[in-house]
Formats: sequence, C-alpha cells, structure tokens
Amino acid sequence: MDIEVHTRHEAIEIDTANKTVLVADLDHGTTRRHHFDHLLIATGSTPIRPHLPGSDAVNIHDVNSLAGGIALKQALQREKPRSAVIVGGGYIGIEMAEALIMRGLQVHLIQRGDQVMSSLDAEPANLVGSALERHGVNVHLGQTVVGFETINGRAVRVITDQATLAADIFLLGLGVRPNSALAGKAGIPLGAGGAIAINDRQQTKVPTIWAAGDCAESFHLVGRRPVFFALGTIANKQGRVAGINLAGGEARFPGVVGTAITKFMDTEIARTGLSEREIKELNIPFVTGLVEAHTLPRYYPGSAPMTVKVLAEQGPGRLLGAQIVGGAGAGKRIDPLAVALHAGFTLDDLLYLDLGYAPPFSGVWEPFVIAARLALKKS
Amino acid sequence: MDIEVHTRHEAIEIDTANKTVLVADLDHGTTRRHHFDHLLIATGSTPIRPHLPGSDAVNIHDVNSLAGGIALKQALQREKPRSAVIVGGGYIGIEMAEALIMRGLQVHLIQRGDQVMSSLDAEPANLVGSALERHGVNVHLGQTVVGFETINGRAVRVITDQATLAADIFLLGLGVRPNSALAGKAGIPLGAGGAIAINDRQQTKVPTIWAAGDCAESFHLVGRRPVFFALGTIANKQGRVAGINLAGGEARFPGVVGTAITKFMDTEIARTGLSEREIKELNIPFVTGLVEAHTLPRYYPGSAPMTVKVLAEQGPGRLLGAQIVGGAGAGKRIDPLAVALHAGFTLDDLLYLDLGYAPPFSGVWEPFVIAARLALKKS
Repeated sequence: MDIEVHTRHEAIEIDTANKTVLVADLDHGTTRRHHFDHLLIATGSTPIRPHLPGSDAVNIHDVNSLAGGIALKQALQREKPRSAVIVGGGYIGIEMAEALIMRGLQVHLIQRGDQVMSSLDAEPANLVGSALERHGVNVHLGQTVVGFETINGRAVRVITDQATLAADIFLLGLGVRPNSALAGKAGIPLGAGGAIAINDRQQTKVPTIWAAGDCAESFHLVGRRPVFFALGTIANKQGRVAGINLAGGEARFPGVVGTAITKFMDTEIARTGLSEREIKELNIPFVTGLVEAHTLPRYYPGSAPMTVKVLAEQGPGRLLGAQIVGGAGAGKRIDPLAVALHAGFTLDDLLYLDLGYAPPFSGVWEPFVIAARLALKKS
Repeated sequence: MDIEVHTRHEAIEIDTANKTVLVADLDHGTTRRHHFDHLLIATGSTPIRPHLPGSDAVNIHDVNSLAGGIALKQALQREKPRSAVIVGGGYIGIEMAEALIMRGLQVHLIQRGDQVMSSLDAEPANLVGSALERHGVNVHLGQTVVGFETINGRAVRVITDQATLAADIFLLGLGVRPNSALAGKAGIPLGAGGAIAINDRQQTKVPTIWAAGDCAESFHLVGRRPVFFALGTIANKQGRVAGINLAGGEARFPGVVGTAITKFMDTEIARTGLSEREIKELNIPFVTGLVEAHTLPRYYPGSAPMTVKVLAEQGPGRLLGAQIVGGAGAGKRIDPLAVALHAGFTLDDLLYLDLGYAPPFSGVWEPFVIAARLALKKS
C-alpha cells in the first residue's frame, strides 16, 4: 500500500458510487479528483461555539484542539489577564479552571445545569463542585449564557439569564460536535449524536468507506446502543481497528463502557458505565451503593477521602456503572470496574475480587466492594 | 447467638465426634471442656524459623505478627543497631529492608534463590533487585544460611554456605506456616501447604467445623487447585464468608487469583495470577508479553518507568497472570488484570478495554494492553 500525504488539502466531496474524492488544494485554490479503493474518514470534531451576541470576540477561546490550546497559552502570556470566565463545567471546563487557578487568575465558572460534571451523578458531582470552590473557583450553577458585551472586538462581560460577570478572558468548554457533514452530504448514514454510523470493524454503511475517531460513533456495551463519545482513547482504538481492516486484516472494536477520568487540583474524578440519568433514559430499574471511604488506610501517610458510587440493575444485579471522586490514587481505581463492566459482572461478582491490598495502596476492602455490598442490600 | 470471649485461653484438643473443645486456662493452669454446635478455627500462621545453630539468639527477629513488629521496633530504639542482615528476599524481607534503610542502617539481604521476590518472574524480580541495590541494600543471592555465630546469646555474624556477614541485628523473612496442628490432631483433613482443607463456604471436611484465615487453604481460580496464601485480604474475605455461614446465612468464597502488592521505596511491585514457575508446575503451554513503559505519558510530570509482563495460555490465549514493577501509580494497575482473571478473559479480551485515560493518569494505551498484544503475536 502506497501512502501519499497531502497537507493543506481538504476533501470537499465524496462520490460513493464512483469511489472518488474531490480534494481542494488550499494553497493554490485548485481541486483534483482522487480515486479510492477504500476511504477512511477521520475528520474529528469541532468545539461547540454558540452563535450568541459577541461570541466571536478575539478573547473568547476554546481549547479542544492543539491550535486552540496554543492560542490560549499565547494569549495568557501576552495579555496577562487577571480574571477569567469559563463557560461549561465539564471535563474541559474544570481542567481549564485548574490551569488558570494555578496561574493565579481569578476564575468564574458558569454551568447551565444544577451541578458541574453533568456526566456524573449529583453526589460525586457536588464533591467536584466543593473542590472547585475550595480552590477559589467561583461556581455559578443554573445560569445560561445569552451573550457577551464587547468593546473593540474584545469581550469584557459575559451576560447570563441572571447576571453579568466581567473578566479579562473567556473560555468555552461546551463539548464538541462530530465533523460528519462531508460524510452526510455523500449519503453515508449518520448515527448517534450526528456521528458517522459504523459497525464493529469501523466500516460505514458504504462497505468501502471507513470512519474512526471523533467523527464516528461508538457502541456502548452497557447501554447496548450507539453513542457519540469524543475521547482520545476511543479514537486511538478505532484508528487501530480501522487501519487493520483497511489493510486487509481482521479486527473488531467491541465497544466502550463509558469510562472517563480527569482531575482538578488534588481531586481525581472518574466514571464508567452509565450514570443515573443515562440509566433512567434506558428505563432500567436500578439500585445504588455510595461509600465515603479513603484511598489508603486512615493511619497511612497520604490517605485521602474517596467517595465511590456503584450502580446496578435491580433484580439481576448487573453492574451498570461506577463513579469515584477522591484524592491521589482514587482515579485509576475505576479501571477494575470498567473491566467488570466489560465482563458483564453482577454485584455478587464484585464481593470477593482478589484485588491488590497492602497499606501503601489501599484498605483491606476496596471501597467499591463495600459500595457493591450496600447496593446488593437494596437489590 | 451468644458470644463469650476468653482471653489467655488456648484450645488444646478438638473432639469432632462429641463436638467439644478442651480449653486450657493459661493463667490458672486448669482445663475445661466446651461443647459447640459449630466451631470456627482461626488459628492463623507462624513465621518459619529454621532450627540452625544460634538461631534462637535474642537479636534475631521475625515480623509476621504485631508482637514481633513491636519487639523489633523496641530493639531498634533501645539498641540503635547500625547494621542489619535480612534473611529472605520476599515481601517481608524487602519491606523490612525499606524500613531499615529509611532508619539509616547498613542493610544486607540474603536470598537462597537466584533472584529476590521468588513469586515474580526473573525480569520483574531483577528490577526489584536493582531498586534494592540502588538504595544501598547489599543483596546476596544464591546463598543459604547455615547458622549464626553468637556471643553471650546475641548473634554477631550470619554464616552462609559461602560467606559470613557481621551485623548488629538480624531479621528473618522466611514466610509462614499455617497453624493447623490442632485441626490435624483432631483428624480434620489438611490440604495445600498443610493448611486446613475447606470448601467454598469455609467448611472443613467435618461439617460443623469451619476454618478461615492463614490456617486455611484457598482455591486458586487460575491454577484450579487449592493453595496456601497467608495474606490479610484473603483472611478478611474468608472470615466474612465463614461468619455469614456460621450464623445461618449463605455465602461463598469463590477463590483467589494470586494477587499481591508491595513496595520498596519508590518502586511499586504487584503480581496476579500464575508466575512462569507456577505455570510450568501445571504443565500449561504459555506465551508472555513484556513491555517497558511509563506510568504516565513521558512529557507529564511524575512519569516513571513501569515494566509490565503478561502471561497467557498458548493457543486459547487465556490470561494466566501479570506482573508490574514501576514508579508511583504502577502497583494498583494490577487490579484490572485481577478482575480480568476472575472473568476468565483471553488476550483478545484485553485489547480494547475501555480504561481511564488522561495524561495525569496514564498513556493512551495502558501498558498491559501493549503487553497483551505482544503475547498475542506469539500465541
């Protein structure tokens, strides 16, 4: 297989019947039609940027791309802002809050819902909210941004449905949309969240056309439905599977279980499976177990609080999800639960797992095991 | 159920036919016979202490009990030794080495085999050996202790088959034996490693007699045979299961997968499943994958080397075990592999697990996934 790399080119039309792509040369303004035997669409995603009054001001940044991150960093160095407003309290929003707090800025965070981290249930999300406040982030919940007040093309205030907030710089962390328009225009069916529909070989409904990464959907093994999750780890896996299949091999991507992890200062945040909201959408009766534990035995240096929540299907007890918020060492404790979801474990299967125990690493009973016991009592 | 607690008493005879225990009152030298409906034997284990010339010297310590630990600590404070010899390079030996190095002692460690940590394969064990040497522990491999030279009841030198080593204090970390003699004398069958044979309800072959903790064997879910593992986490689980069943409930302990974890200074050490030696004992054809990776992406602060080894059955690819040696955050990465063993996963099942990824926590591809890929190529 020969590989030619074309930079400064953009695919502008896919002709699925004739197996060609019309490609624009961005430097010379010309176009050329390329034939393909197989085509991989890996067009990624684009940060959501609401069309609101003033939202195109130069000091409103998003950070979902390398270019966006570089531009923000340069602006911070050049303009030395003293205050920032972050719109959006998800992964990107709180990671930005950490970066700005560490640079000494005064930080406001505006979130439309009644908790930060809408991908978490209320109890763990509120712990994240408390951590934000503890480190000086001013969290404004239940407010919707309606526009920005600008002076000479620069935003000076964000206007919400309830208040206005002045700041030197503004950041948007509102998630991303899949770049699936090119595929959609070509008649390639789209799926979850507008991402390109694919099978477990990363093949679209057009057998010679493949898709991988943020532009493509994933199959949720717990929810048993396609979903749109724009995460680097999923993109890497999809790319590997698509590459093997394109090259004539045989690989299958079984799907995702909804794992995600991040941190804010000394607080680690992780989740896997389905949240209460997602379980309710699927109309599955469920039970939960919530444990306030510690990362290490309390007597051991470095022991920190850790809250673990486990969710399971009422009756059969099938594990549906888990969430962890806690100090150093808490976050990656989600991994055994992710594996348990892949394995289709029930709460019973969690009770006597042979996990690593020694005081520098954990207590005798892993907190998620205790959470599973509590959930089992209600099951 | 009434509970009476008798301290300073020792069971000296179990009569299984008449359901009685003969109990000695250690303070008054009297005995009394107690009737039981159900009897739980939880007699624990005893450190192995070889009967060698000089081995009863007062400054030769073991540390497998709280009393032993306290005695050692008091001796360190009282005698202020400047040098120590540790006999045994397993978990206890290296944990003792850490404690003594941190107190500024000159430390020698003598190990009979050709690597420390005989429960690990050679590559990870040699990394532990290097860490010991790097922190100043003098490691003497392939030497067998034949005795101690004593002066006035105190050991002054350890004598091996190859050399003598002088020190102020001597520690034994030679493992433990199950305290199963009481059960054995009563005709209760013993099993793996001389521990009391039990079923998955912690019931001995005598239905009214139960056993839990270090005195009892465990069933190895990967090796599919009973084993003797004296670990606190297993003892806790067995105690819970025995207690529920004794009290008329219904609980089963499915078994262990061979997980263990420890650390030496900044090196975390973990294993699960079967080692090469154990796999060979079981005559299972196997493949391995070894990866030298990092705990975090290399650009991220705190990233440290981490070596991961995965072992699997040749052909079906059933995961048989894994070992990890690395910096902070490496050890508990064994847990998802332990869960995978409980689930009976194959190497294929590991390839696309949805594990937590973000740069403060891990690289995009969890190192054990890469190790699984390498093993799969040989499978």
